[in-house]
Amino acid sequence: MGKEFLKLTSVNDLIDIIENKIELNLEDSVERLPLLDTTNRVLAEKIKAEEDLPPYSRSAVDGYAVMAEDTFGASPENPAYLKVAGEIEIGEQPEQSLNPGTAIYIPTGAELPAEADSCLMIEDTEKFGSQIEVMNSVSAGENIIKKGDDIKEGQLLLDRGTCLSSAEVGALAGLGHSQVNVFTMPEIAIISSGDELVPPGEKREGSSIYDINSYLLGSLFKEWGLKPSLKGIVNDNKAELKARIEASLDADLIVISGGSSVGVKDYTIEVINRIAEPGVLLHGLAVKPGKPTILGLLNGTPIIGLPGNPSSAWVVAAIVIPAIINRMRGLPIEPRAEFFKNSITAELLEPISSTPGRQEYFPVKLDGNRKASPLYGKSNLITTLVDSDGLIVIPPGSEGLARGSQVQVVPYPPAKGLIFKEQDIDG
Amino acid sequence: MGKEFLKLTSVNDLIDIIENKIELNLEDSVERLPLLDTTNRVLAEKIKAEEDLPPYSRSAVDGYAVMAEDTFGASPENPAYLKVAGEIEIGEQPEQSLNPGTAIYIPTGAELPAEADSCLMIEDTEKFGSQIEVMNSVSAGENIIKKGDDIKEGQLLLDRGTCLSSAEVGALAGLGHSQVNVFTMPEIAIISSGDELVPPGEKREGSSIYDINSYLLGSLFKEWGLKPSLKGIVNDNKAELKARIEASLDADLIVISGGSSVGVKDYTIEVINRIAEPGVLLHGLAVKPGKPTILGLLNGTPIIGLPGNPSSAWVVAAIVIPAIINRMRGLPIEPRAEFFKNSITAELLEPISSTPGRQEYFPVKLDGNRKASPLYGKSNLITTLVDSDGLIVIPPGSEGLARGSQVQVVPYPPAKGLIFKEQDIDG
Repeated sequence: MGKEFLKLTSVNDLIDIIENKIELNLEDSVERLPLLDTTNRVLAEKIKAEEDLPPYSRSAVDGYAVMAEDTFGASPENPAYLKVAGEIEIGEQPEQSLNPGTAIYIPTGAELPAEADSCLMIEDTEKFGSQIEVMNSVSAGENIIKKGDDIKEGQLLLDRGTCLSSAEVGALAGLGHSQVNVFTMPEIAIISSGDELVPPGEKREGSSIYDINSYLLGSLFKEWGLKPSLKGIVNDNKAELKARIEASLDADLIVISGGSSVGVKDYTIEVINRIAEPGVLLHGLAVKPGKPTILGLLNGTPIIGLPGNPSSAWVVAAIVIPAIINRMRGLPIEPRAEFFKNSITAELLEPISSTPGRQEYFPVKLDGNRKASPLYGKSNLITTLVDSDGLIVIPPGSEGLARGSQVQVVPYPPAKGLIFKEQDIDG
Repeated sequence: MGKEFLKLTSVNDLIDIIENKIELNLEDSVERLPLLDTTNRVLAEKIKAEEDLPPYSRSAVDGYAVMAEDTFGASPENPAYLKVAGEIEIGEQPEQSLNPGTAIYIPTGAELPAEADSCLMIEDTEKFGSQIEVMNSVSAGENIIKKGDDIKEGQLLLDRGTCLSSAEVGALAGLGHSQVNVFTMPEIAIISSGDELVPPGEKREGSSIYDINSYLLGSLFKEWGLKPSLKGIVNDNKAELKARIEASLDADLIVISGGSSVGVKDYTIEVINRIAEPGVLLHGLAVKPGKPTILGLLNGTPIIGLPGNPSSAWVVAAIVIPAIINRMRGLPIEPRAEFFKNSITAELLEPISSTPGRQEYFPVKLDGNRKASPLYGKSNLITTLVDSDGLIVIPPGSEGLARGSQVQVVPYPPAKGLIFKEQDIDG
């Protein structure tokens, strides 16, 4: 290999490689957890409703269960009159069914008596002894929630692969689940490579710098529900790198960052190829940042070489790792529809020139008025990641974006990752 | 109290009440954690840079450190020639300074020698013996990252109250921090009230339904970095409610949901007022959903009564609780600028009529093409929360939104809460 890579792999080809070469090692890595502990975890089973929700028709108001027909035409000027035939308590099954010309008092959430098809709000009635005066009409179905309105027996509530936020956890409780199966958190070994690196907390001297990537990537993996395992810093030498990778082979995935200078890049490839089959699958990705990315496989364990520059490593990790984990779990690797649904439309305040032939990820800062400022020429800075609010993705065919363009900003954190098929970028 | 509340409190007044009545009980509830464990926690100290980052000027490329002037006018047709005066290794302090007419080999990230002001990319050079042919010119500052470019000594990196995502954790590592002070996770007691409720996992029978709110709210609190403590279900009776609240007073905040029927509402107020001073601060909020909201204070411990309907409880919790926790920590309770910055502009596919005088939160579903469909008349359903992608906030002065309006959708999860001053809603 010379100074330049022989061939950069496109993102579309990367997706094919992940689909065809990465094994389903994590498909059965499942644990059953108490419901509340599943927050932010990924569901590993399909959840169907075992009964209707709500399980019976309920009142949505405090008032009276009635037959709508008995209220037709009622108004303050021309009230209807109904006999109060009883009272239903919440949590109790109604003993009596409703007869025409009568009303039964019902609180919010209580089960509707048989034959009732609607509820009157208490505010629309006036009680006189055993009668109510009805000042408003209701239509059939009004102010009630019918059995199965929320979800019907047998209907799919949540699919395998759903990330469980509070809404999903609540829905699972509503169907009576106190425990569910979620994927275990895969262990991701993180190795930082570079003679200049010192761990935070130690005293930095001379030309050394603190190791950012172990913590930046470790924290990103935690945000994704993965389990980072910091394997420390290796110096730029073959034997040390080989030993550290071999000592990390019990992880589910191995990430090396740094070692981006020409000589080191070459021997990282050599070391990966020497440890196990099939070795390096891909070297050089047609994305910016991220050209020097490496993807390999060591007896079924994926290994990823990321750039040493922290913001580049962060972007490439978001492109490659969620996709690989999804594949290992047997889930779709590129949930297209979700990507741009949550993106923010903004006007670009400065032009961006891009590199033809590479899919480009450009950090921007948003003001409160939907204007996006590109954080130009600062991609090497860790404060750029802190200051920016999201990324613009520019397809490989583009030569750049003019000032004033409407752009789609993918907001942080990139919960679903940043892998985009070329043809999906403007979608 | 009759059927209607005497007076609904506006959100603006709610903000004043929180600012003036809630005590700073959590200002000093701080723990010092290893850096990686601070992911998604809230920073409890100001972090300033103790030295410049990078701590020395570095090369951003593999190539040669030069004086830019020596390359001026260089092109493939008219190359410049420089003597190679040495080599710098990464992590080592350069021993020699650069002399005019010379170049020193430098890998990416290594410290620039004294007198060098720029770097040539190796691709723009050709080596012949001890000379290089220079095919491109560079300007002063090109291809280097200057000392302090990322952050300067003494500059504020992160303020107290910052939520730490991977970018911030990486920046902290870059400044050498291996531990930082974060706020402890406050304990939030959750009581579900209602005769009809059964815990998930038990067998549901007849007119009972599963308790959704304990898990929905518990999971929401976990998403916010708070510690839910489930205190179970109480039946709709005064003595039981009083005992359960008293048994929850060691929590930092108490949340009761349910008990929304007229009689129960009244005695919840009575019970809160009997337990401790000052008791109920507010009953009835001018928001929709959320009219029956209660805010009280029991010897300094805030207590919040939420509606029994799960999606209403979820919205009101997001309005009230992050604001109260921020206040207890001495942080700004309404981070205005952040709210709409990340909102999604969409076209409304159906009109929404709203209730004048109340700030309204309306769930919508987004398609991939920036169209928003209101999830109308389904606010009582737990599947509505699962299906919707965000909320539209309608100010109290509005009578509704026309079909085709451009709306701002606040996406889930509501990381910063949902408290909005009236005048900020269209901002």
